[in-house]
Amino acid sequence: MRIALDAMGGDFAPEPNIKGAIDALQAEPALEVVLVGPQDLLESQIEASGYNGERLSIVHASQVVGMEEKPTEAMRSKPDSSISVCWKLMAAREVDAVVSAGNTGAVVASGLKTRLFLKEVKRPGIAVTLPTVAGHAVLMDVGANPSARPAHLYQYAVMGEIYAREVLGVASPKVGLINIGSEDVKGNDLYRETYRLLTESPLKESFVGNVEGRGLYQGEADVLICEGFVGNVVLKVSEGMAEFLMKEASHQILGSLDKEKGQALQAFQEMAKRFRYHETGGAPLLGIDGICIICHGSSDAHSITNALRGSIMFKDRGINSQIAEHLAQKPVA
Amino acid sequence: MRIALDAMGGDFAPEPNIKGAIDALQAEPALEVVLVGPQDLLESQIEASGYNGERLSIVHASQVVGMEEKPTEAMRSKPDSSISVCWKLMAAREVDAVVSAGNTGAVVASGLKTRLFLKEVKRPGIAVTLPTVAGHAVLMDVGANPSARPAHLYQYAVMGEIYAREVLGVASPKVGLINIGSEDVKGNDLYRETYRLLTESPLKESFVGNVEGRGLYQGEADVLICEGFVGNVVLKVSEGMAEFLMKEASHQILGSLDKEKGQALQAFQEMAKRFRYHETGGAPLLGIDGICIICHGSSDAHSITNALRGSIMFKDRGINSQIAEHLAQKPVA
Repeated sequence: MRIALDAMGGDFAPEPNIKGAIDALQAEPALEVVLVGPQDLLESQIEASGYNGERLSIVHASQVVGMEEKPTEAMRSKPDSSISVCWKLMAAREVDAVVSAGNTGAVVASGLKTRLFLKEVKRPGIAVTLPTVAGHAVLMDVGANPSARPAHLYQYAVMGEIYAREVLGVASPKVGLINIGSEDVKGNDLYRETYRLLTESPLKESFVGNVEGRGLYQGEADVLICEGFVGNVVLKVSEGMAEFLMKEASHQILGSLDKEKGQALQAFQEMAKRFRYHETGGAPLLGIDGICIICHGSSDAHSITNALRGSIMFKDRGINSQIAEHLAQKPVA
Repeated sequence: MRIALDAMGGDFAPEPNIKGAIDALQAEPALEVVLVGPQDLLESQIEASGYNGERLSIVHASQVVGMEEKPTEAMRSKPDSSISVCWKLMAAREVDAVVSAGNTGAVVASGLKTRLFLKEVKRPGIAVTLPTVAGHAVLMDVGANPSARPAHLYQYAVMGEIYAREVLGVASPKVGLINIGSEDVKGNDLYRETYRLLTESPLKESFVGNVEGRGLYQGEADVLICEGFVGNVVLKVSEGMAEFLMKEASHQILGSLDKEKGQALQAFQEMAKRFRYHETGGAPLLGIDGICIICHGSSDAHSITNALRGSIMFKDRGINSQIAEHLAQKPVA
């Protein structure tokens, strides 16, 4: 398997990206990584790493999209960005996957521009894995598609269910629709119509109905579906709140302790790790004909390695062919 | 000031409601409370409390809406519910305020049915106060209006700003629009159009632009505006996550301790208190010609007292007349 890694994506790139790639190459004998970014810079970094270069190549990209840059503008003004070049490689079938910890908006915009969609897929969406009381849950879409229609949400349910089964290992994933109450008439037209589509679809056995916000972290479903606007706000509110709560808790609790402060601090650090998104190996943009894994901007080498290895699993489990097969069976209007 | 208290609303009603009312009456000499619920039950409870009954009266309501009941159905089948009777009292100007810890959907649906809106207000919305890194922030709307239009969101900004100034005591509240990126073209049509309305309005000096989910708990604005669907999901995801994180943290951290477990537990309890919504005195349904304070279902006597006293503050600060004045100045299309 050949993966294009955006060497310049992420808050600390390119160092952790290169280290992450080398670690993944050493663990996975069938993996090939194409580092995408400024040739000279990457060459010197690889040399400095001492790695012999096996199965690691470079494709030059002269531009870099900043993490805070406006995606639409960046797409226009930087046609040779590492993100764009990654997608060009996938569109040309020179790689099987794109992995990037770069500007999420730009990764998505650039990917959608290729129109490299799986057959029957109307709009790709980002699926993120979150920790819950029950283990983990997949939330989709978290921002690829801010103006969803019911058919899009229905397809997210199909894709999320397959992903949860194959990647999280849930035998029969329960699918819930994020909503503001459990009644089937709740929400607005988008959610009411999606509810109807789900109850009349092949997914009806897996569909547990509307799930309120509380249910997400309480583990009421394995797959939670919503439009990109809602999912993105939920994801980022969660990040902000986890940071706030953990800071507050460690301050208050550690402040109350004396001799046992050290062991409490260690317990905090263990816990914080569980809530770090990049531990999960990145979030796939599902619905793409190919593989695209989006990593958190703060990814370290370990997260990059996880995402590269996750791409292999994604391919091995045949997620895309399962999605295409399911959607061909019963396309939605 | 005369307040109708839904004696039957809340997970533990009517006991904490009655105790909360009596405590408020003892603290506020100008307060009158009308308990709304089954006459016999409430009479015997007041008698059991030993309170002399001063400034405390009962208005009979024969029905109770369950906390999990479907609001629309409950409205139809229970015309004499304590919630409906509270609103009838306000519509008849027999009380200045309604306070309820009952089924939020039913409180809102029943209130909106009265069409008791402030002049120029298109849709009332619920404003909730959340703890943040910076202190507190107001999030509006959290569910009264699941299909908002730009003019509604604009009015929420006006109402939320006045509320934050008068009740949270922020001299010049910063108003942010919840969005999925900071660019003005972000989000969907609703948010783009609201952004434009805000930048062209008398609020433009207070408007700090789009705020991503992360910014809510990071204190990037004092007032965060969004449609009811998003706000409701955010509020409930926050509740679920706080519960999950605090449980996890107390389990992990307390488990790592030995002799100092007691003091850490106390620190946790102090902290959990800060994150309990009912400490803030309830969430107003803003835009009503009158006062409506919605309390959390898990409210105890202390929360009810807070909400009753909060209603007095709401009246004293002239929040409604300020809202009406502002909206008369520059009505939105």
